[in-house]
Amino acid sequence: MSNPIEFWFDFSSPYGYFMSERIDAVAARHGRKVRWRPFLLGAVYKQFDFKPLPSIPLKGPYSVHDILRTSRFLDIPCVIPEAFPIATQHAARAWYWLHDRDCAMARAFAHAAFRDYFRDGRDISQPERVLELAAACGADRDALAAALGSEELKTRLRDECAAAIARGIFGSPFVVIDGEPFWGVDRLPQIERWLETGGF
Amino acid sequence: MSNPIEFWFDFSSPYGYFMSERIDAVAARHGRKVRWRPFLLGAVYKQFDFKPLPSIPLKGPYSVHDILRTSRFLDIPCVIPEAFPIATQHAARAWYWLHDRDCAMARAFAHAAFRDYFRDGRDISQPERVLELAAACGADRDALAAALGSEELKTRLRDECAAAIARGIFGSPFVVIDGEPFWGVDRLPQIERWLETGGF
Repeated sequence: MSNPIEFWFDFSSPYGYFMSERIDAVAARHGRKVRWRPFLLGAVYKQFDFKPLPSIPLKGPYSVHDILRTSRFLDIPCVIPEAFPIATQHAARAWYWLHDRDCAMARAFAHAAFRDYFRDGRDISQPERVLELAAACGADRDALAAALGSEELKTRLRDECAAAIARGIFGSPFVVIDGEPFWGVDRLPQIERWLETGGF
Repeated sequence: MSNPIEFWFDFSSPYGYFMSERIDAVAARHGRKVRWRPFLLGAVYKQFDFKPLPSIPLKGPYSVHDILRTSRFLDIPCVIPEAFPIATQHAARAWYWLHDRDCAMARAFAHAAFRDYFRDGRDISQPERVLELAAACGADRDALAAALGSEELKTRLRDECAAAIARGIFGSPFVVIDGEPFWGVDRLPQIERWLETGGF
């Protein structure tokens, strides 16, 4: 059985959101599964002194334009949320907690969180909203609320971020197919060809 | 008659090189001409304190991998030159001097310079090599040699770089269609659809 494709993302990344709406279907067409792995771009940015895209001169204003055009190009609805970018550690921690209990629930939560943020423009940075979204997916809200404050879950996410950096992962979305790294939703055509041909 | 498409590029940009091999044909399929405009990424980077891609942690090593894979994906031969990136002011100045005299010769020189650098791996940063390439395209070598040292041509390129920055152009390749900006050779599918549909 072939290895799952890895899909690394930050919940605050619009290009990550676009990829989240496509990657499972692309993989399925080639008989592959996808392993989703949220991480924090902030951890990468802090370590290497990168700046968040929206704050970069020229590139920031362009990116807003590009995000909305790419949304139309891919036919995936998207707004630029009023709070953008945001801290996503609570959403990412919730995802890992859910995933350890129920993969399908974690997947449903990821879609719900991305869509809540990038379709409905709601701020998903606070634990309260993360808990509401998780509960709507069937999670035990009180147990998750307790877990979100735990050192164990904080360490878990910290380890995932360190693993991402150790693997050379610096952006969102970041897709890895049998060790081959693809950064950006604009690499979807290359990803498709890679899956079709087994590498080129 | 429709406006020409603008194609901004730096001679040291591999993604700019890829676009240079595609943009005229893409435009021609839609009855459009292309106005090529070399500029210096260094001017943008200096003003906004951006770092050259190869020097950025994680992103730099990834980009080398991505450049070579993109070369195979687009079926455009490419090597990573030993000297990379390089200063390209002499090539860009030569291009503007040629363009003021003979558009077709400037286009031929641009292809020759990009291919010399990214196919054959030759360093095109020095005036000597720029003059050889221009002469092979039919340019008056002595007149160009004299012009390369002139304040007039230096000012010309400085003005082009300032114009790029004033227009929000920060990367290479940068394509502008009737005011709509597209950064990166990976935006070719969006460019094609934009030309087909008149905007989306």
